[in-house]
Amino acid sequence: MTKQGKFITLEGVEGVGKTSNLAFVAARLRAAGVTVVETREPGGTALGEALRALLLGHKHDGMAEDAELLLMFAARAEHLARVIRPALERGDWVLCDRFTEATYAYQGGGRGVERQRIEALENWVQGDLRPDLTILLDLSVEQGLARAGQRSAPDRFEKEHAAFFHAVRNDYLRQAEARPDQFRIIDAEPTLARVQASIAVVLDDFLGSARQ
Amino acid sequence: MTKQGKFITLEGVEGVGKTSNLAFVAARLRAAGVTVVETREPGGTALGEALRALLLGHKHDGMAEDAELLLMFAARAEHLARVIRPALERGDWVLCDRFTEATYAYQGGGRGVERQRIEALENWVQGDLRPDLTILLDLSVEQGLARAGQRSAPDRFEKEHAAFFHAVRNDYLRQAEARPDQFRIIDAEPTLARVQASIAVVLDDFLGSARQ
Repeated sequence: MTKQGKFITLEGVEGVGKTSNLAFVAARLRAAGVTVVETREPGGTALGEALRALLLGHKHDGMAEDAELLLMFAARAEHLARVIRPALERGDWVLCDRFTEATYAYQGGGRGVERQRIEALENWVQGDLRPDLTILLDLSVEQGLARAGQRSAPDRFEKEHAAFFHAVRNDYLRQAEARPDQFRIIDAEPTLARVQASIAVVLDDFLGSARQ
Repeated sequence: MTKQGKFITLEGVEGVGKTSNLAFVAARLRAAGVTVVETREPGGTALGEALRALLLGHKHDGMAEDAELLLMFAARAEHLARVIRPALERGDWVLCDRFTEATYAYQGGGRGVERQRIEALENWVQGDLRPDLTILLDLSVEQGLARAGQRSAPDRFEKEHAAFFHAVRNDYLRQAEARPDQFRIIDAEPTLARVQASIAVVLDDFLGSARQ
């Protein structure tokens, strides 16, 4: 079947405000008459949530890099088969909190996995499916960690050093530069109202071209 | 580091007697002065056993084929990094109850996943590491299922139809034919004593060439 709906992802390092802004994006799309499926990675399915618990929990600290990457893509394969592809095929739009771009940023940029190894799994799992729009919420690492720290106990990824998050952020920015058609960078430093005003401009523009 | 130990795997469909014969192989190798690490797939590590529970349990019946395959290889990546490669590098021999050959047989032969898709993950995860010796316990599907049925409640794979196990068995036999240097086929129909006498011949031959 041909893909009909649009696939939008939200990306960014910890503390950047993905959760609050995801709800805003969903509401804005629904107001424009679009049926939206909100989901997240890793997770989005029963199996995916079980894998998310394995990945983000502390029980398997120090799991092999390859294993971590394959678990991410296993969750993604289930997510694509059960949620994302069926939604797109029936014409719904999918709004996903993180996707493969996060794997490039965290496992590639952050942990130093070779880009080609991630790319091999991306092609293996996704075929030619890529997000139509990726909204990258960008914030300095210091501000992101400060915001995230106020929220809850740090998970396994959040406990990594600041240098790691710098590498993650830089990888996101490089991806955005390399694929300007897919990425829109939003400065996440201002007040939530101003950030959402910027997101609204991006969405309205995207909705306009999607309907042409 | 270069691989020094030998990597031996035991394969075969359900009810073929892998568990009893694994103990026999380990004992025979130890009697010959070899240090043996006994392990199994999927599993062999804490993460691997958690994934084994996901794969063999009924909670995620009907998981996407791609997800199943990636989970198998995630468990394998962890197993290689934590158990198999370190053991081989310190000169121990590794004796593993099932390995990638089972993935070809079950997911490829049994479920119809394209061989090339499995091969892509095999290369991604293993590089050029392959078992030095694969002992394939071969038995008619009817006898195997009858033996397995006497043992315990069927797991998710055992509940598949007999046609599935025929396809699995045939795939194992095709692999053995394609790689005669790696595979030794053992007829698992006779009494355990006679099966083990056949295995002993294979092992003594392998020990002989390993020491040359």
